[in-house]
Amino acid sequence: MSLEEELRTTGLPEDAVGLLEGIATTRAIRRYRDEPVPPEILRDILFAATRAPSGSNRQPFRMLVLADGPKALEAKALIAASAQRIWGSKRRADSYDAGSGAVEDSPKARTARAMQSYVDNFERVPVLILPCLVRYRQATPFEGGSIYPACQNVLLAARALGYGGVLTGFNFGVDAELHRLLGVPEEVFIAGTITIGRPRGSHGPVRRRPLGELVYEEAWGNSPTWAIDPPGTRHTSAGPPRPDS
Amino acid sequence: MSLEEELRTTGLPEDAVGLLEGIATTRAIRRYRDEPVPPEILRDILFAATRAPSGSNRQPFRMLVLADGPKALEAKALIAASAQRIWGSKRRADSYDAGSGAVEDSPKARTARAMQSYVDNFERVPVLILPCLVRYRQATPFEGGSIYPACQNVLLAARALGYGGVLTGFNFGVDAELHRLLGVPEEVFIAGTITIGRPRGSHGPVRRRPLGELVYEEAWGNSPTWAIDPPGTRHTSAGPPRPDS
Repeated sequence: MSLEEELRTTGLPEDAVGLLEGIATTRAIRRYRDEPVPPEILRDILFAATRAPSGSNRQPFRMLVLADGPKALEAKALIAASAQRIWGSKRRADSYDAGSGAVEDSPKARTARAMQSYVDNFERVPVLILPCLVRYRQATPFEGGSIYPACQNVLLAARALGYGGVLTGFNFGVDAELHRLLGVPEEVFIAGTITIGRPRGSHGPVRRRPLGELVYEEAWGNSPTWAIDPPGTRHTSAGPPRPDS
Repeated sequence: MSLEEELRTTGLPEDAVGLLEGIATTRAIRRYRDEPVPPEILRDILFAATRAPSGSNRQPFRMLVLADGPKALEAKALIAASAQRIWGSKRRADSYDAGSGAVEDSPKARTARAMQSYVDNFERVPVLILPCLVRYRQATPFEGGSIYPACQNVLLAARALGYGGVLTGFNFGVDAELHRLLGVPEEVFIAGTITIGRPRGSHGPVRRRPLGELVYEEAWGNSPTWAIDPPGTRHTSAGPPRPDS
Protein backbone atom coordinates (compact mmCIF):
# COMPACT_ATOMS: atom_id res chain seq x y z
CA MET A 1 0.00 0.00 0.00
CA SER A 2 1.38 3.44 -0.87
CA LEU A 3 1.87 6.04 1.85
CA GLU A 4 -0.98 8.02 0.33
CA GLU A 5 -3.39 5.09 0.46
CA GLU A 6 -2.29 4.28 3.95
CA LEU A 7 -2.92 7.79 5.23
CA ARG A 8 -6.29 7.92 3.48
CA THR A 9 -7.47 4.95 5.52
CA THR A 10 -5.69 5.71 8.81
CA GLY A 11 -7.37 7.89 11.41
CA LEU A 12 -5.62 9.75 14.21
CA PRO A 13 -4.11 7.37 16.78
CA GLU A 14 -5.85 6.64 20.08
CA ASP A 15 -4.95 9.28 22.64
CA ALA A 16 -2.50 8.28 25.34
CA VAL A 17 -2.63 11.73 26.97
CA GLY A 18 -5.74 13.58 28.13
CA LEU A 19 -6.61 17.09 27.02
CA LEU A 20 -6.11 18.96 30.31
CA GLU A 21 -3.12 16.83 31.20
CA GLY A 22 -1.54 17.53 27.82
CA ILE A 23 -2.06 21.27 28.18
CA ALA A 24 -0.48 21.25 31.64
CA THR A 25 2.56 19.21 30.62
CA THR A 26 3.54 20.56 27.21
CA ARG A 27 6.73 22.42 27.80
CA ALA A 28 9.38 23.79 25.48
CA ILE A 29 11.49 20.93 24.15
CA ARG A 30 14.85 22.09 22.78
CA ARG A 31 16.92 18.87 22.68
CA TYR A 32 16.05 16.29 20.07
CA ARG A 33 17.18 12.83 19.14
CA ASP A 34 18.76 12.49 15.71
CA GLU A 35 15.69 10.83 14.21
CA PRO A 36 13.56 11.97 11.30
CA VAL A 37 9.87 12.63 11.96
CA PRO A 38 7.86 10.06 9.97
CA PRO A 39 5.26 11.34 7.49
CA GLU A 40 2.30 9.90 9.41
CA ILE A 41 3.36 11.89 12.47
CA LEU A 42 3.74 15.04 10.38
CA ARG A 43 0.26 14.45 8.96
CA ASP A 44 -1.25 14.17 12.42
CA ILE A 45 0.59 17.22 13.78
CA LEU A 46 -0.32 19.38 10.80
CA PHE A 47 -3.90 18.16 10.80
CA ALA A 48 -4.12 19.32 14.42
CA ALA A 49 -2.53 22.65 13.49
CA THR A 50 -5.17 23.38 10.90
CA ARG A 51 -8.05 22.63 13.29
CA ALA A 52 -7.25 25.94 15.00
CA PRO A 53 -9.72 28.80 14.79
CA SER A 54 -9.12 31.96 12.75
CA GLY A 55 -11.02 35.20 12.18
CA SER A 56 -14.19 34.51 10.14
CA ASN A 57 -12.74 31.02 9.65
CA ARG A 58 -10.64 32.48 6.82
CA GLN A 59 -7.96 29.86 7.52
CA PRO A 60 -5.20 32.26 6.50
CA PHE A 61 -2.59 29.93 7.99
CA ARG A 62 -0.17 28.00 5.81
CA MET A 63 2.28 25.70 7.50
CA LEU A 64 5.58 25.36 5.67
CA VAL A 65 7.32 22.17 6.73
CA LEU A 66 11.10 21.89 6.30
CA ALA A 67 12.59 18.44 6.80
CA ASP A 68 15.57 17.28 4.74
CA GLY A 69 15.22 18.65 1.20
CA PRO A 70 17.90 20.99 -0.18
CA LYS A 71 15.89 24.14 0.59
CA ALA A 72 15.07 22.83 4.04
CA LEU A 73 18.77 22.42 4.75
CA GLU A 74 19.51 25.90 3.48
CA ALA A 75 16.68 27.38 5.55
CA LYS A 76 17.93 25.56 8.64
CA ALA A 77 21.43 26.96 8.12
CA LEU A 78 20.06 30.48 7.67
CA ILE A 79 17.90 30.35 10.78
CA ALA A 80 20.66 28.63 12.76
CA ALA A 81 23.04 31.49 12.05
CA SER A 82 20.34 33.99 13.01
CA ALA A 83 19.58 32.03 16.19
CA GLN A 84 23.26 32.06 17.18
CA ARG A 85 23.51 35.82 16.63
CA ILE A 86 20.26 36.58 18.48
CA TRP A 87 21.02 34.31 21.42
CA GLY A 88 24.58 35.63 21.60
CA SER A 89 23.32 39.20 22.01
CA LYS A 90 20.67 38.16 24.47
CA ARG A 91 23.16 36.21 26.54
CA ARG A 92 25.22 39.37 26.90
CA ALA A 93 22.32 41.85 27.19
CA ASP A 94 20.55 39.83 29.88
CA SER A 95 23.82 39.10 31.72
CA TYR A 96 23.35 35.34 31.65
CA ASP A 97 26.95 34.80 32.75
CA ALA A 98 26.94 37.28 35.62
CA GLY A 99 25.65 36.89 39.15
CA SER A 100 24.27 33.40 39.77
CA GLY A 101 25.00 32.63 36.09
CA ALA A 102 28.60 31.97 37.14
CA VAL A 103 27.43 29.16 39.44
CA GLU A 104 27.32 25.96 37.44
CA ASP A 105 24.06 24.54 38.72
CA SER A 106 22.04 27.73 39.08
CA PRO A 107 18.79 27.93 37.09
CA LYS A 108 20.31 30.82 35.18
CA ALA A 109 23.39 28.86 34.13
CA ARG A 110 21.26 25.88 33.20
CA THR A 111 18.98 28.02 31.03
CA ALA A 112 22.01 29.54 29.32
CA ARG A 113 23.51 26.11 28.63
CA ALA A 114 20.19 24.79 27.27
CA MET A 115 19.81 27.78 24.96
CA GLN A 116 23.43 27.61 23.80
CA SER A 117 23.08 23.94 22.96
CA TYR A 118 19.75 24.63 21.20
CA VAL A 119 21.21 27.24 18.86
CA ASP A 120 24.50 25.34 18.36
CA ASN A 121 22.55 22.28 17.21
CA PHE A 122 19.87 24.16 15.35
CA GLU A 123 20.89 22.94 11.89
CA ARG A 124 20.36 19.35 13.00
CA VAL A 125 16.79 19.88 14.22
CA PRO A 126 14.73 17.11 12.57
CA VAL A 127 11.89 19.34 11.36
CA LEU A 128 11.17 23.05 11.21
CA ILE A 129 7.67 24.35 10.70
CA LEU A 130 7.28 27.95 9.57
CA PRO A 131 3.77 29.12 10.42
CA CYS A 132 2.77 31.64 7.75
CA LEU A 133 -0.10 34.12 7.74
CA VAL A 134 -1.59 35.15 4.41
CA ARG A 135 -2.56 38.75 5.06
CA TYR A 136 -5.71 40.06 3.42
CA ARG A 137 -5.35 43.54 4.91
CA GLN A 138 -2.77 45.73 6.66
CA ALA A 139 -1.10 44.12 9.65
CA THR A 140 -3.07 44.50 12.91
CA PRO A 141 -2.11 43.36 16.41
CA PHE A 142 -5.19 41.07 16.34
CA GLU A 143 -3.99 39.11 13.29
CA GLY A 144 -1.92 36.86 15.56
CA GLY A 145 -5.25 35.43 16.69
CA SER A 146 -5.42 33.70 13.31
CA ILE A 147 -1.99 32.05 13.39
CA TYR A 148 -0.69 31.50 16.95
CA PRO A 149 -3.58 29.25 18.06
CA ALA A 150 -2.48 26.96 15.21
CA CYS A 151 1.10 27.09 16.56
CA GLN A 152 -0.13 26.05 19.97
CA ASN A 153 -2.00 23.14 18.38
CA VAL A 154 1.28 22.05 16.74
CA LEU A 155 3.05 21.94 20.09
CA LEU A 156 0.18 20.13 21.81
CA ALA A 157 -0.21 17.59 19.03
CA ALA A 158 3.53 16.92 19.06
CA ARG A 159 3.22 16.22 22.78
CA ALA A 160 0.29 13.87 22.13
CA LEU A 161 2.40 11.86 19.70
CA GLY A 162 5.58 11.58 21.77
CA TYR A 163 7.32 14.54 20.11
CA GLY A 164 8.06 18.02 21.34
CA GLY A 165 9.01 21.45 20.16
CA VAL A 166 9.23 25.13 20.77
CA LEU A 167 8.14 28.34 19.02
CA THR A 168 10.80 31.00 18.50
CA GLY A 169 11.27 34.17 16.49
CA PHE A 170 14.72 33.30 15.13
CA ASN A 171 13.40 33.57 11.56
CA PHE A 172 12.95 37.33 11.92
CA GLY A 173 16.69 37.88 11.58
CA VAL A 174 16.62 36.36 8.07
CA ASP A 175 13.12 37.19 6.95
CA ALA A 176 13.90 38.49 3.46
CA GLU A 177 16.28 35.58 2.78
CA LEU A 178 13.62 33.05 3.79
CA HIS A 179 10.97 34.67 1.62
CA ARG A 180 13.33 34.47 -1.34
CA LEU A 181 14.64 30.98 -0.71
CA LEU A 182 11.23 29.40 -0.13
CA GLY A 183 9.21 31.46 -2.61
CA VAL A 184 7.00 32.93 0.10
CA PRO A 185 4.98 35.85 -1.34
CA GLU A 186 5.90 39.26 0.01
CA GLU A 187 2.52 39.90 1.69
CA VAL A 188 2.77 36.65 3.66
CA PHE A 189 3.99 37.02 7.23
CA ILE A 190 6.34 34.27 8.43
CA ALA A 191 5.12 34.32 12.01
CA GLY A 192 7.78 32.25 13.74
CA THR A 193 9.85 29.08 13.68
CA ILE A 194 8.68 25.90 15.35
CA THR A 195 11.28 23.17 15.83
CA ILE A 196 9.99 19.62 16.26
CA GLY A 197 11.62 16.33 17.14
CA ARG A 198 11.75 13.40 19.51
CA PRO A 199 12.69 14.80 22.92
CA ARG A 200 15.96 13.79 24.51
CA GLY A 201 14.60 15.02 27.82
CA SER A 202 11.02 14.58 28.88
CA HIS A 203 7.84 16.57 29.11
CA GLY A 204 6.47 17.42 32.51
CA PRO A 205 4.59 20.03 34.50
CA VAL A 206 4.96 23.52 33.14
CA ARG A 207 6.08 26.20 35.61
CA ARG A 208 4.57 29.65 35.77
CA ARG A 209 4.00 32.47 38.20
CA PRO A 210 1.26 31.82 40.77
CA LEU A 211 -2.19 31.84 39.16
CA GLY A 212 -3.38 34.81 41.19
CA GLU A 213 -0.69 36.99 39.59
CA LEU A 214 -1.82 36.16 36.06
CA VAL A 215 -5.61 36.11 36.44
CA TYR A 216 -7.85 39.00 37.40
CA GLU A 217 -11.58 39.29 37.92
CA GLU A 218 -13.91 42.25 37.51
CA ALA A 219 -11.04 44.76 37.26
CA TRP A 220 -7.34 44.98 36.49
CA GLY A 221 -5.13 43.80 39.35
CA ASN A 222 -7.93 42.13 41.27
CA SER A 223 -7.08 38.45 41.92
CA PRO A 224 -10.16 36.27 42.25
CA THR A 225 -10.49 34.08 45.35
CA TRP A 226 -10.65 31.04 43.07
CA ALA A 227 -7.28 31.76 41.39
CA ILE A 228 -5.51 29.01 43.30
CA ASP A 229 -3.06 26.65 41.71
CA PRO A 230 -3.88 22.94 41.91
CA PRO A 231 -1.86 21.04 44.52
CA GLY A 232 1.71 20.27 43.50
CA THR A 233 2.03 23.20 41.08
CA ARG A 234 5.58 24.50 40.88
CA HIS A 235 6.23 28.14 40.18
CA THR A 236 8.88 30.14 38.42
CA SER A 237 9.56 33.81 37.94
CA ALA A 238 8.87 35.47 34.61
CA GLY A 239 11.15 36.31 31.74
CA PRO A 240 14.90 36.49 31.37
CA PRO A 241 16.96 36.82 34.54
CA ARG A 242 17.34 40.21 36.16
CA PRO A 243 20.81 41.69 35.73
CA ASP A 244 21.68 41.28 39.39
CA SER A 245 20.14 37.84 39.93
CA MET B 1 -14.47 23.83 53.82
CA SER B 2 -14.04 27.20 52.16
CA LEU B 3 -13.79 27.44 48.39
CA GLU B 4 -10.17 28.43 48.80
CA GLU B 5 -9.31 25.41 50.91
CA GLU B 6 -11.20 23.18 48.53
CA LEU B 7 -9.31 24.44 45.49
CA ARG B 8 -6.00 24.15 47.30
CA THR B 9 -6.57 20.43 47.73
CA THR B 10 -8.33 19.66 44.45
CA GLY B 11 -6.33 18.79 41.37
CA LEU B 12 -7.51 19.02 37.78
CA PRO B 13 -10.28 16.52 37.03
CA GLU B 14 -9.59 13.25 35.22
CA ASP B 15 -9.65 13.79 31.49
CA ALA B 16 -12.69 12.53 29.62
CA VAL B 17 -11.36 13.73 26.26
CA GLY B 18 -8.00 12.90 24.70
CA LEU B 19 -5.52 15.52 23.56
CA LEU B 20 -5.68 14.93 19.79
CA GLU B 21 -9.40 14.27 19.92
CA GLY B 22 -9.97 17.49 21.84
CA ILE B 23 -7.94 19.52 19.35
CA ALA B 24 -9.91 18.04 16.44
CA THR B 25 -13.33 18.65 17.99
CA THR B 26 -13.07 22.06 19.64
CA ARG B 27 -15.18 24.29 17.51
CA ALA B 28 -16.57 27.77 18.03
CA ILE B 29 -19.48 27.62 20.49
CA ARG B 30 -21.74 30.68 20.29
CA ARG B 31 -24.93 29.53 22.01
CA TYR B 32 -24.85 29.06 25.76
CA ARG B 33 -27.22 27.83 28.42
CA ASP B 34 -28.22 30.42 31.03
CA GLU B 35 -25.96 28.94 33.70
CA PRO B 36 -23.10 30.55 35.58
CA VAL B 37 -19.65 28.98 35.26
CA PRO B 38 -18.65 27.66 38.70
CA PRO B 39 -15.39 28.90 40.24
CA GLU B 40 -13.69 25.50 40.13
CA ILE B 41 -14.28 25.38 36.36
CA LEU B 42 -12.91 28.91 35.98
CA ARG B 43 -9.87 27.89 38.00
CA ASP B 44 -9.19 24.91 35.75
CA ILE B 45 -9.73 26.88 32.52
CA LEU B 46 -7.50 29.74 33.64
CA PHE B 47 -4.85 27.41 34.96
CA ALA B 48 -4.74 25.85 31.49
CA ALA B 49 -4.56 29.29 29.89
CA THR B 50 -1.49 30.23 31.87
CA ARG B 51 0.36 27.01 30.95
CA ALA B 52 0.80 28.49 27.46
CA PRO B 53 4.26 29.43 26.25
CA SER B 54 5.42 33.02 25.78
CA GLY B 55 8.58 34.68 24.51
CA SER B 56 11.43 34.12 27.03
CA ASN B 57 8.71 32.76 29.33
CA ARG B 58 7.95 36.36 30.26
CA GLN B 59 4.33 35.37 30.94
CA PRO B 60 3.07 38.77 29.78
CA PHE B 61 -0.48 37.45 29.66
CA ARG B 62 -3.12 38.57 32.14
CA MET B 63 -6.56 37.06 31.86
CA LEU B 64 -9.34 39.41 32.96
CA VAL B 65 -12.44 37.39 33.82
CA LEU B 66 -15.83 39.10 33.72
CA ALA B 67 -18.73 37.17 35.21
CA ASP B 68 -21.56 38.96 37.02
CA GLY B 69 -20.11 41.88 38.96
CA PRO B 70 -21.24 45.43 38.16
CA LYS B 71 -18.24 46.17 35.94
CA ALA B 72 -18.60 42.82 34.23
CA LEU B 73 -22.20 43.71 33.32
CA GLU B 74 -21.15 47.10 32.05
CA ALA B 75 -18.32 45.58 30.00
CA LYS B 76 -20.70 43.01 28.54
CA ALA B 77 -23.13 45.76 27.52
CA LEU B 78 -20.33 47.78 25.91
CA ILE B 79 -18.95 44.84 23.95
CA ALA B 80 -22.47 43.66 23.04
CA ALA B 81 -23.24 47.02 21.43
CA SER B 82 -19.91 46.91 19.59
CA ALA B 83 -20.59 43.34 18.46
CA GLN B 84 -24.00 44.33 17.10
CA ARG B 85 -22.52 47.24 15.17
CA ILE B 86 -19.60 45.22 13.78
CA TRP B 87 -21.71 42.24 12.79
CA GLY B 88 -24.36 44.54 11.26
CA SER B 89 -21.76 46.11 8.96
CA LYS B 90 -20.25 42.75 8.12
CA ARG B 91 -23.64 41.26 7.32
CA ARG B 92 -24.17 44.02 4.75
CA ALA B 93 -20.59 44.23 3.46
CA ASP B 94 -20.31 40.47 2.94
CA SER B 95 -23.85 40.27 1.44
CA TYR B 96 -25.00 37.63 3.89
CA ASP B 97 -28.63 38.14 2.80
CA ALA B 98 -28.03 38.02 -0.96
CA GLY B 99 -27.63 35.03 -3.24
CA SER B 100 -27.98 31.77 -1.33
CA GLY B 101 -28.39 33.84 1.85
CA ALA B 102 -32.04 34.31 0.88
CA VAL B 103 -32.58 30.54 1.01
CA GLU B 104 -33.52 29.62 4.56
CA ASP B 105 -31.47 26.48 4.95
CA SER B 106 -28.35 27.47 3.04
CA PRO B 107 -25.05 27.41 4.98
CA LYS B 108 -24.83 31.17 4.44
CA ALA B 109 -28.25 31.85 5.95
CA ARG B 110 -27.49 29.54 8.86
CA THR B 111 -24.19 31.30 9.58
CA ALA B 112 -25.96 34.66 9.49
CA ARG B 113 -28.66 33.47 11.91
CA ALA B 114 -26.05 32.00 14.28
CA MET B 115 -24.04 35.22 14.30
CA GLN B 116 -27.14 37.40 14.71
CA SER B 117 -28.27 35.34 17.67
CA TYR B 118 -24.75 35.45 19.15
CA VAL B 119 -24.54 39.23 19.11
CA ASP B 120 -28.21 39.71 20.13
CA ASN B 121 -27.61 37.57 23.23
CA PHE B 122 -24.12 38.80 23.94
CA GLU B 123 -25.00 40.57 27.18
CA ARG B 124 -26.24 37.29 28.64
CA VAL B 125 -23.04 35.33 27.94
CA PRO B 126 -22.11 33.66 31.26
CA VAL B 127 -18.45 34.65 31.25
CA LEU B 128 -16.19 36.87 29.20
CA ILE B 129 -12.44 36.54 29.35
CA LEU B 130 -10.35 39.43 28.08
CA PRO B 131 -6.87 38.17 27.25
CA CYS B 132 -4.48 41.04 27.93
CA LEU B 133 -0.87 41.44 26.86
CA VAL B 134 1.44 43.52 29.03
CA ARG B 135 3.76 45.07 26.46
CA TYR B 136 7.38 45.57 27.40
CA ARG B 137 8.33 47.11 24.06
CA GLN B 138 6.68 48.60 20.96
CA ALA B 139 4.02 46.40 19.37
CA THR B 140 5.41 43.81 16.95
CA PRO B 141 3.52 41.30 14.81
CA PHE B 142 5.28 38.51 16.78
CA GLU B 143 3.86 39.62 20.12
CA GLY B 144 0.67 37.63 19.44
CA GLY B 145 2.84 34.55 19.98
CA SER B 146 2.80 35.42 23.68
CA ILE B 147 -0.98 35.76 24.08
CA TYR B 148 -2.94 33.76 21.48
CA PRO B 149 -1.52 30.36 22.47
CA ALA B 150 -3.02 31.08 25.91
CA CYS B 151 -6.36 31.88 24.23
CA GLN B 152 -6.27 28.55 22.41
CA ASN B 153 -5.61 26.82 25.74
CA VAL B 154 -8.73 28.53 27.16
CA LEU B 155 -10.90 27.16 24.36
CA LEU B 156 -9.39 23.67 24.60
CA ALA B 157 -9.70 23.54 28.38
CA ALA B 158 -13.31 24.69 28.16
CA ARG B 159 -13.94 21.80 25.76
CA ALA B 160 -12.25 19.41 28.19
CA LEU B 161 -14.61 20.49 30.97
CA GLY B 162 -17.88 20.41 29.03
CA TYR B 163 -17.88 24.11 28.20
CA GLY B 164 -17.24 25.97 25.00
CA GLY B 165 -16.41 29.36 23.62
CA VAL B 166 -15.11 31.51 20.86
CA LEU B 167 -12.48 34.22 20.41
CA THR B 168 -13.62 37.44 18.74
CA GLY B 169 -12.33 40.98 18.24
CA PHE B 170 -15.55 42.72 19.28
CA ASN B 171 -13.69 44.54 22.08
CA PHE B 172 -11.74 46.60 19.56
CA GLY B 173 -14.78 48.79 18.88
CA VAL B 174 -14.81 49.93 22.51
CA ASP B 175 -11.15 49.64 23.45
CA ALA B 176 -10.73 52.99 25.22
CA GLU B 177 -13.99 52.53 27.14
CA LEU B 178 -12.87 49.09 28.35
CA HIS B 179 -9.47 50.35 29.45
CA ARG B 180 -11.18 53.08 31.48
CA LEU B 181 -13.96 50.94 32.94
CA LEU B 182 -11.69 48.08 34.01
CA GLY B 183 -8.62 50.09 34.96
CA VAL B 184 -6.46 48.44 32.33
CA PRO B 185 -3.17 50.37 31.97
CA GLU B 186 -2.74 52.18 28.67
CA GLU B 187 0.26 50.11 27.53
CA VAL B 188 -1.66 46.87 27.99
CA PHE B 189 -3.15 45.43 24.81
CA ILE B 190 -6.62 43.89 25.20
CA ALA B 191 -6.08 41.20 22.61
CA GLY B 192 -9.63 39.91 22.12
CA THR B 193 -12.81 38.75 23.79
CA ILE B 194 -13.43 35.12 24.65
CA THR B 195 -16.99 34.15 25.54
CA ILE B 196 -17.44 30.99 27.60
CA GLY B 197 -20.45 28.99 28.71
CA ARG B 198 -22.21 25.64 28.66
CA PRO B 199 -22.98 24.88 25.02
CA ARG B 200 -26.59 24.65 23.90
CA GLY B 201 -25.39 22.83 20.81
CA SER B 202 -22.55 20.33 20.82
CA HIS B 203 -18.91 20.13 19.92
CA GLY B 204 -17.89 18.00 16.98
CA PRO B 205 -15.38 17.68 14.18
CA VAL B 206 -14.00 20.98 13.02
CA ARG B 207 -14.23 21.69 9.28
CA ARG B 208 -11.43 23.21 7.27
CA ARG B 209 -10.09 23.33 3.75
CA PRO B 210 -8.36 20.13 2.61
CA LEU B 211 -5.03 19.65 4.39
CA GLY B 212 -3.01 19.84 1.18
CA GLU B 213 -4.20 23.41 0.64
CA LEU B 214 -2.97 24.56 4.06
CA VAL B 215 0.29 22.65 4.41
CA TYR B 216 3.37 22.99 2.23
CA GLU B 217 6.72 21.25 2.27
CA GLU B 218 10.14 22.45 1.14
CA ALA B 219 8.70 25.48 -0.69
CA TRP B 220 5.63 27.70 -0.81
CA GLY B 221 2.69 26.13 -2.65
CA ASN B 222 4.18 22.63 -2.65
CA SER B 223 1.72 20.17 -1.02
CA PRO B 224 3.47 17.21 0.55
CA THR B 225 2.30 13.73 -0.42
CA TRP B 226 1.52 13.04 3.22
CA ALA B 227 -0.89 16.01 3.54
CA ILE B 228 -3.95 13.79 3.47
CA ASP B 229 -6.90 14.28 5.79
CA PRO B 230 -7.80 11.36 8.05
CA PRO B 231 -10.82 9.36 6.87
CA GLY B 232 -14.18 11.02 7.54
CA THR B 233 -12.81 14.59 7.57
CA ARG B 234 -15.36 17.10 6.33
CA HIS B 235 -14.24 20.22 4.54
CA THR B 236 -15.46 23.76 4.23
CA SER B 237 -14.41 26.77 2.20
CA ALA B 238 -12.56 29.60 3.86
CA GLY B 239 -13.77 32.92 5.18
CA PRO B 240 -16.95 34.90 4.75
CA PRO B 241 -19.17 34.04 1.77
CA ARG B 242 -18.31 35.44 -1.64
CA PRO B 243 -20.70 38.18 -2.77
CA ASP B 244 -22.27 36.03 -5.50
CA SER B 245 -22.46 32.77 -3.55
